[in-house]
Amino acid sequence: MKKKSLPLGKVYGLLEPGPVVLLTTSRKGRPNVMAMSWHTMLEFEPPLVGCVVSGRDYSFAALKTTRECVMNIPTVELAEAVVGCGNSSGDDTDKFAAFGLTPEPAACVAAPLIAECYASLECRVVDTRMVNRYNFFVLEVVKAWIDPARKDPRTLHHRGRGAFMVAGESIRLKSRMK
Amino acid sequence: MKKKSLPLGKVYGLLEPGPVVLLTTSRKGRPNVMAMSWHTMLEFEPPLVGCVVSGRDYSFAALKTTRECVMNIPTVELAEAVVGCGNSSGDDTDKFAAFGLTPEPAACVAAPLIAECYASLECRVVDTRMVNRYNFFVLEVVKAWIDPARKDPRTLHHRGRGAFMVAGESIRLKSRMK
Repeated sequence: MKKKSLPLGKVYGLLEPGPVVLLTTSRKGRPNVMAMSWHTMLEFEPPLVGCVVSGRDYSFAALKTTRECVMNIPTVELAEAVVGCGNSSGDDTDKFAAFGLTPEPAACVAAPLIAECYASLECRVVDTRMVNRYNFFVLEVVKAWIDPARKDPRTLHHRGRGAFMVAGESIRLKSRMK
Repeated sequence: MKKKSLPLGKVYGLLEPGPVVLLTTSRKGRPNVMAMSWHTMLEFEPPLVGCVVSGRDYSFAALKTTRECVMNIPTVELAEAVVGCGNSSGDDTDKFAAFGLTPEPAACVAAPLIAECYASLECRVVDTRMVNRYNFFVLEVVKAWIDPARKDPRTLHHRGRGAFMVAGESIRLKSRMK
């Protein structure tokens, strides 16, 4: 799909609802992708995101050494690919080929965008002090992409053990909050 | 509503989907409540949760000094109350009275459960080392409550500026993942 650049100040609106993301890394010229639900916004602008990548994940070493990744946000059409990514390891699987995901060059980092995801956030690791204790990385989003045609994306929200809630209707209330 | 105790190992399934929560605190005998979307799981069991409570929030001092809170999970029926909590301050408002929320005694902490919320997680602050830099508190869930009658709760997921996605349909895929 054709993505457009998104102002960095609008990134929080993509991550606050809590979607599963597909995190891509690239190390020694080899891209990989993992499914991740443990993330939170930490700051609006520049957007800072905290996320847990376990030491058991193949992506851990790539994230720690290259200090770059892309958070790609999938929608319900990609549910099988998301679960496939979560149940396999980059150690022995080319997950892009296995699950029909298309890597595309990013603008600022070596990790690829995933063409099939409606939004992609290029990130740099800016703080690793919480990695030893919590496997918690602080990322700065340096470039954001979104498919402007997707108004209410049907994102996936993990409930555990293969169960997902799919984003439903949108409501809008009068609010002074950001 | 009548809530039952939930095993702590199942708490992640409530927070992974990314719902807005109503965070209650109690300081000097006075309870307060704020809306919060910036949270993430950090560990399965005992469940650790990381969350951002801004120094500008009235709840910040209560959380920092009492080191206790309750994360209450509202559903769509409470949308007006959630936005009301987000747009007012405990400094000058009794938000329980103002928005029709009923405080109930918790089992392990002084902060109250909210009767109208389908799930409530009693928490203790276990790490404040990231508070100075990110306003990021690490909480341990010490007791969890859930209304067993609610199978697919229609939780609220903030998209920014008063827009919320409401939890839609649930899907289940074959997965070996927790």
